[in-house]
Order: sequence, then structure tokens, then C-alpha cells
Amino acid sequence: MQQRVIKPAAGIVLAQQRQHHKPARLESFKKLSNVDIEHFKKIVPAETVLATAAVGGKADPIELEGFNADWLDKYRGNSQLVLRPKTTKEVSAILKYCSEQRIAVVPQGGNTGLVGGSVPVHDEVVLSLRNMNRVRSYDEVSGVLVCDAGCVLEELDNYVAERGHIMPLDLGAKGSCHIGGNVATNAGGIRFLRYGSLHGSVLGLEVVLPDGTVLDNLSTLRKDNTGYDLKQLFIGSEGTLGVITGVSVLTPRRPSAVNVAVLGVPSYENVQQAFKHARQRCGEILSAYEFWDSSCMRAVLHHQSLKSPLEAEYPFYVLVETSGSEKAHDDEKLSALLEELLEQGIVEDGALAQDDTQISRMWMMREGIPESLGKTGATYKYDVSIPIPVLYDVVKDIAKKLEKADLYKPDQSSGPVKMVCGYGHIGDSNLHLNVVADKFEDRVTNIFEPYVYEWVASHRGSISAEHGVGLMKRDYLGYSKSPEMISYMKRIKDVFDPHHILNPYKVV
Amino acid sequence: MQQRVIKPAAGIVLAQQRQHHKPARLESFKKLSNVDIEHFKKIVPAETVLATAAVGGKADPIELEGFNADWLDKYRGNSQLVLRPKTTKEVSAILKYCSEQRIAVVPQGGNTGLVGGSVPVHDEVVLSLRNMNRVRSYDEVSGVLVCDAGCVLEELDNYVAERGHIMPLDLGAKGSCHIGGNVATNAGGIRFLRYGSLHGSVLGLEVVLPDGTVLDNLSTLRKDNTGYDLKQLFIGSEGTLGVITGVSVLTPRRPSAVNVAVLGVPSYENVQQAFKHARQRCGEILSAYEFWDSSCMRAVLHHQSLKSPLEAEYPFYVLVETSGSEKAHDDEKLSALLEELLEQGIVEDGALAQDDTQISRMWMMREGIPESLGKTGATYKYDVSIPIPVLYDVVKDIAKKLEKADLYKPDQSSGPVKMVCGYGHIGDSNLHLNVVADKFEDRVTNIFEPYVYEWVASHRGSISAEHGVGLMKRDYLGYSKSPEMISYMKRIKDVFDPHHILNPYKVV
Repeated sequence: MQQRVIKPAAGIVLAQQRQHHKPARLESFKKLSNVDIEHFKKIVPAETVLATAAVGGKADPIELEGFNADWLDKYRGNSQLVLRPKTTKEVSAILKYCSEQRIAVVPQGGNTGLVGGSVPVHDEVVLSLRNMNRVRSYDEVSGVLVCDAGCVLEELDNYVAERGHIMPLDLGAKGSCHIGGNVATNAGGIRFLRYGSLHGSVLGLEVVLPDGTVLDNLSTLRKDNTGYDLKQLFIGSEGTLGVITGVSVLTPRRPSAVNVAVLGVPSYENVQQAFKHARQRCGEILSAYEFWDSSCMRAVLHHQSLKSPLEAEYPFYVLVETSGSEKAHDDEKLSALLEELLEQGIVEDGALAQDDTQISRMWMMREGIPESLGKTGATYKYDVSIPIPVLYDVVKDIAKKLEKADLYKPDQSSGPVKMVCGYGHIGDSNLHLNVVADKFEDRVTNIFEPYVYEWVASHRGSISAEHGVGLMKRDYLGYSKSPEMISYMKRIKDVFDPHHILNPYKVV
Repeated sequence: MQQRVIKPAAGIVLAQQRQHHKPARLESFKKLSNVDIEHFKKIVPAETVLATAAVGGKADPIELEGFNADWLDKYRGNSQLVLRPKTTKEVSAILKYCSEQRIAVVPQGGNTGLVGGSVPVHDEVVLSLRNMNRVRSYDEVSGVLVCDAGCVLEELDNYVAERGHIMPLDLGAKGSCHIGGNVATNAGGIRFLRYGSLHGSVLGLEVVLPDGTVLDNLSTLRKDNTGYDLKQLFIGSEGTLGVITGVSVLTPRRPSAVNVAVLGVPSYENVQQAFKHARQRCGEILSAYEFWDSSCMRAVLHHQSLKSPLEAEYPFYVLVETSGSEKAHDDEKLSALLEELLEQGIVEDGALAQDDTQISRMWMMREGIPESLGKTGATYKYDVSIPIPVLYDVVKDIAKKLEKADLYKPDQSSGPVKMVCGYGHIGDSNLHLNVVADKFEDRVTNIFEPYVYEWVASHRGSISAEHGVGLMKRDYLGYSKSPEMISYMKRIKDVFDPHHILNPYKVV
């Protein structure tokens, strides 16, 4: 899951944050001049062009700040030009010119990514999709939504909610992230367990290729077996193959009954046991199965104005959500599950939300983890997929290594490392491993990087479950993909973006 | 849905069936000789090589019959060599040699396709995957199955059923089709409504490229965002980009309660109305919503030893299936739906299956349609996606055109055309339009081809919802995909199969 988008509190010293290795600027890319700006002003409305004096414009560099830095301010580029086109035709004209002139471009949605994929590395032009935010059509019988790429996820969810449907994905950043960015990064999130991957629910895309070609594949059909399914390549390509301008997505019917429970669990083994029971008892209505450890819980209770729904403290917590069409039936199923889990000693305590306020507070507990860890200190974040049985082992392993290196004392929060903790989506084998330290420093990083990637690779896991590769993990791709796979990815890149102007320095 | 695989009854004159236009043999492909056969015998066990005297072998051409012709005997090639490797390594060695020698190859699974995609057009080597049929691993916690491509779908479903799970797809040909072929053709079928597309449920593939490279991407992870999702390209590529040798697929928990009802519906408008109600009332347990018209029903009742569960005849029939985890709850939901539909006059009659035998007889009614039409006469089959509101219009339109041309009299079954009928998966906007005639002849075909493709294209439908393109629809691809899309498909083909040796003359 991506984090709720909040600007860091004033007290956090951003300069402390770790700067990732920055590849050198490719000299083959043209440096922008006044001539280019004048050309752009001819193809898009002048008010959508944001250029600094460095390239002959008048914008204050501070206006470009939000486009140059990611929301964690971990990655920072130096673009002097932001373009915010309003139509697909404008996007096409921009890219065609950039392609001819060898001008590097970074497409940007809500800029809520976590791997430096959506901000420039050097002076790339920022192509922001935020002005493309119309719903193009909605079919109430099939539930198919067709919209511009720059629509904000939460606004779309509200739009379809009024029509009795639900977006097939949800994540903490929903208030800022764009559907186009969600698709470009193959976002996962908390509805994944129930509604599956965007590779299944995206029915069509409109994509502008670097040479200006518009690939119009905005199908609204659930089934279409006519040739290679090219749109799949753009899902998760992080803006390196083409710019997504339109999305057609299947929205399921909105469940009329939602139930949530929080469980106190004595061991990770029991977290797994309880998951098996939940799938058996709740079957088709199980819509989320999230877990977090006691360290996460302490951070949340310290930093959020929330009270634990359980009296005692437990090594692990689980949030179970069901979503169905008949409240009485769902209540019965979830109550039977809780009873069974308590009876068999698989969980030690459990609380069932009694109303929407309680449901939302339970979710805030889970969704407040990233923010709470951020307030605790400098947070190293790893988003990995690991087979469920060994998923939590990596947290224990990293903690031990840090302890051995005298950087971490589990019982105190005084060392350079304050916390080593884990949370995530058990149902999807997806762990968020976080290490919270006083500050970002090499002696800490060196302990678990690349060790954590090696660990994941040795268990045939993925070094990026849902956050993507971006700039952050480009050098580590080999831990999850074979040289042959990477070689073919590069050939695909050559097919769609022969001059490599799109989102350079990233992914492959 | 693909059809149940049955050999045509002896009485059917196969020669009558329409021969599709056959492209000329490409002379760039090498003609096989004894030297090649000797080479193949060195890289695969001799008993897995089936070669006729024409290429220096000893096999009777009749032994190759089942590999050269599709099950409807509509498409027929003239291969003199069938290879049936047992390992991925053997597949790799075969393809490497074929690539070097420019020998054309057609990969073949269960050979149950309907568009001529799985049989040779001329003398291509048939690469049959039937000897690769082992389950490689199964994880009972996650439900992830990893197996060879040549495993038969029904056998896999039985395998996972014993472990409490279900294959995410089901189709009439399940007793013969291979999972590798299902993936290569992106098969849909009757569980699509509930479990979605293979693009969502296939987690990983092992694919051998024409040059012998093995792309090992047999991931068992639900989430993996590390670079472009190459496996997606092979799903639905119909064996033209690589040969799928291994499949990793997510199997959902098998529902413990299954209910089926058949409804008698007065109009197509009401078929749609009833669908809306079914989705509202049954929500997450709705697992199938199939429809067929009265012509189909008459053919089934005439040719199958089945009795209609409804007393009167209706213009349309609907089969509703629910699958859930709690029988009492599901019964309640389905009964409430039926009551509502009858009360509001949306359906005129309905029968609820009382036991497994009745469930299976109701399904036989729906699944027996293709076979019954085949027994009625020469059947022209179109498998199209069309927006639900106008889906049945194409059936009426084609009937009118044939009537106007004096080829069809709706009240008699005597004309050259005996029936124009429709059935399919409403929930997926997927219609099977069938025209049954005395024989295949141009004066009939010319009435609705390419008219039916134009009709579908003008409604932004797909000319192939699930059957694929193969040889049959290659020339019609432009009705569903833009020239730009087709051009990029060809570039993708060039990347993976630069010498175009894989499944030539098909798809793009």
C-alpha cells in the first residue's frame, strides 16, 4: 500500500534524508532553451506552461518545487519546465516534438510514488496529467468507467459510489494519486485480495507513445481476444513506454454491508492459521486481511489520537474486513469466525466494529502506520513479496543483524536504529518491512542493503511487490528477474521508445 | 466458451464443411528431410518423434491425422512430423534447431480451438505438449498451482478440488484442452464472470522462445512489480511469440455450496433486467449468468436426452448459478431473487435445481447447445463481444438479411439456412452467434461476412471475444484493432520471433 499523502511535519529535518545514488545526466538529451518554450506555447495553452527564467520563462522556481520533489522529499530533480496539457492531442504534440528534439520527459500523476519514479532526476520536462481529469463515460449496466488519466482515485470512487459501484483498488494515497499513475505503477492496495490485479480489471487504455502516436485501445469490453494484449505492457511500466492518457476500468458493485474486526494474535504462526480459517468461513466476502506487529501498534498509539480496541498488547494484530450484499448473512459468518478463532486459541482477543465510526477508526489504525513511523524517525521502507510461511522471518533476521552490529537494542529506542517492524497484506504475501532510525546513514544501510534483496531473492520473492522499481530499485532488478527477462524488457523499451526519452534513468 | 470435444458423428459429411482461404506456403521455410529427423532423434527420445515416410520416418500418415486436423475438421494441415517432448530442455533444443534451420513450428495443446490456431496450415512441425503433464507444485495455503503446460484442465480441476480449491476457468472442452493452450488463447469460459480473466489469475509462465531461450518467470507471487510484465504478452498470443511450457496459476477456494436455476424469459430486454436484479440480490455469489434463445432450446431438446425444466416454451432462457461458502445463506439469496423476478413479471417461470443431478442436467442443457447445433447442420460460428444493450440485435439483423435474400424462412427449417440463433455469457457481453445451414456455401456466407464483423466494429465490439484470431480471423483483425495497434503487434512479433517460425500464417 502507498501511504496517505501528507506533507512532512515542519519538525522533520528533510536534509537528513538519505539521497540515493543519482546517475549522471545523459548528454544526448537536449538542454532546453527559449526556442523550445516558445514552441510548447504554440501547442498547449500558455497558462499550462510553467517555465523558469533558466529556460526563458517567468515562473518562480518555487512553483516547480512540488513537481521536482516527491512527497517524502527523498528524490529531487531539477526540471525548469512543467507542461500540463488538457487533451490527448496536446500530449501527442508535446511528445512528438520532444522525440524529434531528444528532450527527456517524465510523466507525472499525483506524485505519490515511493521509488522516485514520478519526479525528474535531472532537467527532464515534467509532463503533468493533472489537467486531464474528466470522466468520459460510465455504463451503469456493466459498471465500466472510462476516464482521463489525471482523475484522482478518491474522486472516481465517490463518482462510482453514487452509482452503486466501487473502484477495484484503494490505497492510502487515494486523495492525491491519479488513476493513470495507479495503472502506470500497477498499484495494489487494500482491495487487491478481493478484486485482484489491475491486469484483470483494466479493460482498455489510451496511450501516447514517445513519437506522438496515439494507441487507442479504450475498449469497454470484458473479453477481447484479437491479437496481443498490448495494454498489459503499459500497466506497471512506470511511464517508461508511453504516457497513459485514458483508462477504461471495470468497477464491481459496491458491497452494501461492510464489517471489520481487529484481532490480537500471539504469534505469526497463528496469524497464518487465522487467515486459513477466515478464508474458509468468510469465503467470497473476505475483502481484507491485514496484519501488523506490536512495534507498529505502539507507534500508531503514540502518534495518532487512537485507542486500541483491545485491552492488552499482543505480538501481532490482524484486521479482517468482509464486504457482502446481505448484512445479516455477513454478520453471521464473521461472528462464527471470531468464535471459532477464540475457542481454538488461535487469537487471544478480538473486537468487532459496531458502526461506521468504529470501522473507520480500525482502518485508521492500519493506515496510520506509515505516518506514525515517519514521525518516529528516518524510515527505510522495503515493500516485498515473500511466500507467506516465511514472510515475517525477514523482519526478525534484519533486527538480529542490526543488534549484532550494535546499532539496535530491541528494548530501548535509543540506538541509531529505533525500530525494526513489519506490516502488510498477508493475503497477498506482501510485507512492508520498515526500519526506523535517528537518521539515514550508511553504517545502518550497509547492514541490510543489498542483504534484504538477497534474502528475498533466495526465497523467490519479489523485491518490489507493489511500489515498483523507479530510480530506487533499478540497480536491484536482477534480484527478481533473470538476465534474459531483463534483456527482453530492454528490447520492448526499444520498440516503444527508441530514443529513450521517456522517464530516463528508471526501471530498465 | 469452447465446445465439449466430441468427434463428429459418422453421419456428418465432413467434406461439406467450408474450407477457409489458405495462404500460400512461405518458401523461406525449410522443407524437412531425413537429416532433420535424425537430428531431432538426438535431442528428444526416439519414441516421441512421429515422422512419415515423406521425411524419412516410418509413421503411417493416419497416426498424424489427429495433429493435422482440428476437432471440427474445418482446418487441415499437412505436417509430416510431430514432436512430443517431455521436458522444457527438449522444447528449447527443438526450437533452437528450428530457428537456425528456419523450420516452421506449430505448438499444439489439446487441439480444441475453433479458429484454426492449433493445427498446421502446410507442413509445419507439430510441437505437441501432451507429454508435459506433471503438476510441479501446489501450495495449500496460497492456492498457487505450478504445472506443465500439457496438463488437461479437467484433471487439474480434479487435483485442486481434492485440496479444496477450484481452477479459475472452466469450459466445455475441459476434458481435452491443456492449461498451456488455455493460457496461450486466453480462454474465457463459464467461470469468467466470477473469477475474471487469466491476465489476472496467471501468476507466472515458463516460456521457450524460438531461439531456445527459456524465459523463467514461474512466479508464485500475487504481487510483483519489478519491470514490464512480459508474461502478459504470451497470454492470448496463440503460440506465435513463444511456447508456454509451464504455468503458475492462482486457484480460488472451491465454493462449498452451488445453486442453479433456469428461468423462462419473455424478451431480451427482460434478460437484461433479470441480470441487474441477479447482481444486486446475489452480489458476490453470482458465478454464472448464461442465456440462450428458443431456437437453441429446441435444438437441445431435440438432440439431447434432456427434458426442459420449464413447462412452456419461452423466447429466452437464462441459467443463473451461485457459488458460496454457506448453503443456507445462498439458498435464501437465490430464492429471494426468483421470487422478486416472478413477482415483477420479469421472468415468467423458473426452476431451481434440487440436487446435484438437476444442477448437472441444467448445465448440460447450456453446454449441449454447440453439439446440438452441429447435429442440426453445418454451423457457422461467431464469437463476439458487443455492449449488452444491443447484444442480441445482431442475431435479429442477420436473420432479417438472410430472410430478405430468400435463404431463410423463420417458421420452417427447410431453407438453405435452418436456424439463426444466439447464446452466451451475458455477464461478459459475450455472444455466440450461430447460423445453421444445410451446408457451407458462398451464397450464404456472403450475406453475413464481412457484414457481421462490420456490425460488431460499428458498436465498438470485438470480433473475437474468447476464441482468438488464429487463421480464421487474421484478415479481419482490423475490425477490432487500429492500424497503429496492429503495427506494434508486428513489432512485438519481430522481437520474440525474428524469423517468424512460430505458428506462421496466424494472428498478425
